[in-house]
Amino acid sequence: MPSGEEKIIELFRPLAKHPGAFGLIDDCAAVTPPLGHDLVLKADAIVGGVHFFPTDPASDVARKALRVNLSDLAAKGAKPIGFLLSLALPKEAGIEWVAAFAEGLGDDAERYGCPLFGGDTVATPGPVTVAITVFGAVPTATMVERGGAKVGDHIVVSGTIGDAALGVRLCQDPGLARRWNLSETQAEHLIGRYRLPQPRNAAAEALRRHAHGGMDISDGLVGDLDKLCQASGVAAKVHAAQVPLSDAARVALAADPTLIEPILTGGDDYEILATAEDAKLAPLLKAAEAAGVTLTEIGRILAGQGARVLDSGGTALTFERGSYSHF
Amino acid sequence: MPSGEEKIIELFRPLAKHPGAFGLIDDCAAVTPPLGHDLVLKADAIVGGVHFFPTDPASDVARKALRVNLSDLAAKGAKPIGFLLSLALPKEAGIEWVAAFAEGLGDDAERYGCPLFGGDTVATPGPVTVAITVFGAVPTATMVERGGAKVGDHIVVSGTIGDAALGVRLCQDPGLARRWNLSETQAEHLIGRYRLPQPRNAAAEALRRHAHGGMDISDGLVGDLDKLCQASGVAAKVHAAQVPLSDAARVALAADPTLIEPILTGGDDYEILATAEDAKLAPLLKAAEAAGVTLTEIGRILAGQGARVLDSGGTALTFERGSYSHF
Repeated sequence: MPSGEEKIIELFRPLAKHPGAFGLIDDCAAVTPPLGHDLVLKADAIVGGVHFFPTDPASDVARKALRVNLSDLAAKGAKPIGFLLSLALPKEAGIEWVAAFAEGLGDDAERYGCPLFGGDTVATPGPVTVAITVFGAVPTATMVERGGAKVGDHIVVSGTIGDAALGVRLCQDPGLARRWNLSETQAEHLIGRYRLPQPRNAAAEALRRHAHGGMDISDGLVGDLDKLCQASGVAAKVHAAQVPLSDAARVALAADPTLIEPILTGGDDYEILATAEDAKLAPLLKAAEAAGVTLTEIGRILAGQGARVLDSGGTALTFERGSYSHF
Repeated sequence: MPSGEEKIIELFRPLAKHPGAFGLIDDCAAVTPPLGHDLVLKADAIVGGVHFFPTDPASDVARKALRVNLSDLAAKGAKPIGFLLSLALPKEAGIEWVAAFAEGLGDDAERYGCPLFGGDTVATPGPVTVAITVFGAVPTATMVERGGAKVGDHIVVSGTIGDAALGVRLCQDPGLARRWNLSETQAEHLIGRYRLPQPRNAAAEALRRHAHGGMDISDGLVGDLDKLCQASGVAAKVHAAQVPLSDAARVALAADPTLIEPILTGGDDYEILATAEDAKLAPLLKAAEAAGVTLTEIGRILAGQGARVLDSGGTALTFERGSYSHF
């Protein structure tokens, strides 16, 4: 009779399509890396009660765990190769939970061309903890670096900013939807943006070809832009009015102007933040658009240090906290 | 003022010696893989209260987390390249705990030539959870596979078997030391073998050159040998009397002969299990010995299926459970 562990491995086996995953029967995977390429590596974990609600559907938890890692590869201009999974499971998570988790993970592994190479499942007295390590490839020495921004660069972001930060508040207090004048669809949109990031991997090649510096926005636009500035030894000026917002976020912001703070500093956007020189801005926007990703210019890179966000009158906004810190 | 997260990153920065780790200021690492080599990948997590005692020293927890992964690379014949770390920390683990953790991890990263490439630290309401992904390299298509054992092969193991399974019992019930007639040094030896695995990476090259099949023993010799047989489509016969035991384990076993079961089926050995054809046995033992690792022959690979362990009278031993399963 198969043990619980073997039953779990069975659920993940269909995700291990790459021959180097040995159908999950070996202890390790073997991968022949693509010639003339660098590997791009990232490890990110999500924890029940911290990064997702324990009641979130298992398939969404799995997708989120993979997507927060894929988002980093996107920002670095890298094409996914595969991932490894460490899954810590409490006893309460039964085999049905794991089956739904594996199904969601398998869908996304397929969608993003990122097969499972291996991993392990362990018991925990704590909450579900999903640690994923993803690896991708870029032609040698072409990774888009956080420290690559240059003075004079245009600053762009993908998609819309702040949705997830509003979405998590709606999860915690559903009554906010009415106070923010949101339609049901709009509230669902914001919650969906928290629950399931949309990593911009389609834009990776455009970024690799045209961007100077880049990172994904996971801890809030302002704080992450500040990190990009620090890594690059530059400053940044951003116009709040140019930051792209979803219709839902606009409606909420009109109802409560103080929401500008969570919109600009809240986490979980999983959008791209990148910089490009003058001559590359148009090619970058065009190539990304052709790949289905809208990039919007929000400001410029300057000499100096620190990231400033200006309101429509040109006054610098100040925030209680610039960035999400876990500790 | 640096955030808690930045203080933590600061502690790990000295471990990120490889230029591709960008001093941990980037979101991702970039590695140029060695030409003509395959990457060997492994992800394994350890959880407080499951794989280690919450009171274990932080530096030992860190070492164990890295070593259980290095042990897999050793068994596959792979040379370590580096690792990524996902660390989930409860609030109770203060900065001093993390500092001791980082110090232990740094010592082992140095010792095994396996630098930190990146990772992340997240908060958890649960116990400390350490998920490490390690990657190594072997010349293309030379990874020692779990499914590589051939009929007629000799079966060898490294070091001594069963120490950690006895050590964990001593941690749970210190009174056992007296009942097992153990000296203080012997009891400490067994506990130390549980707390801090000694991965056999020194033998990796010998295994890669001479072994047919291999894996590391983490879930008990009998169960893991059974897995190796299943993956290889073969059977195995092992002589219990040939299984190498430490002096401490011999003394305990003499005091309580039923300990043969935890010795042969308990987990956490982190020794090598490998097979080699007749002509390769002597070169394998010699090359491993030259690298400082003693391998001992314990039996043979046969046609058929299943792993049998025979007592000195030639009778097959039966065990309540063949292998450690987490679920």
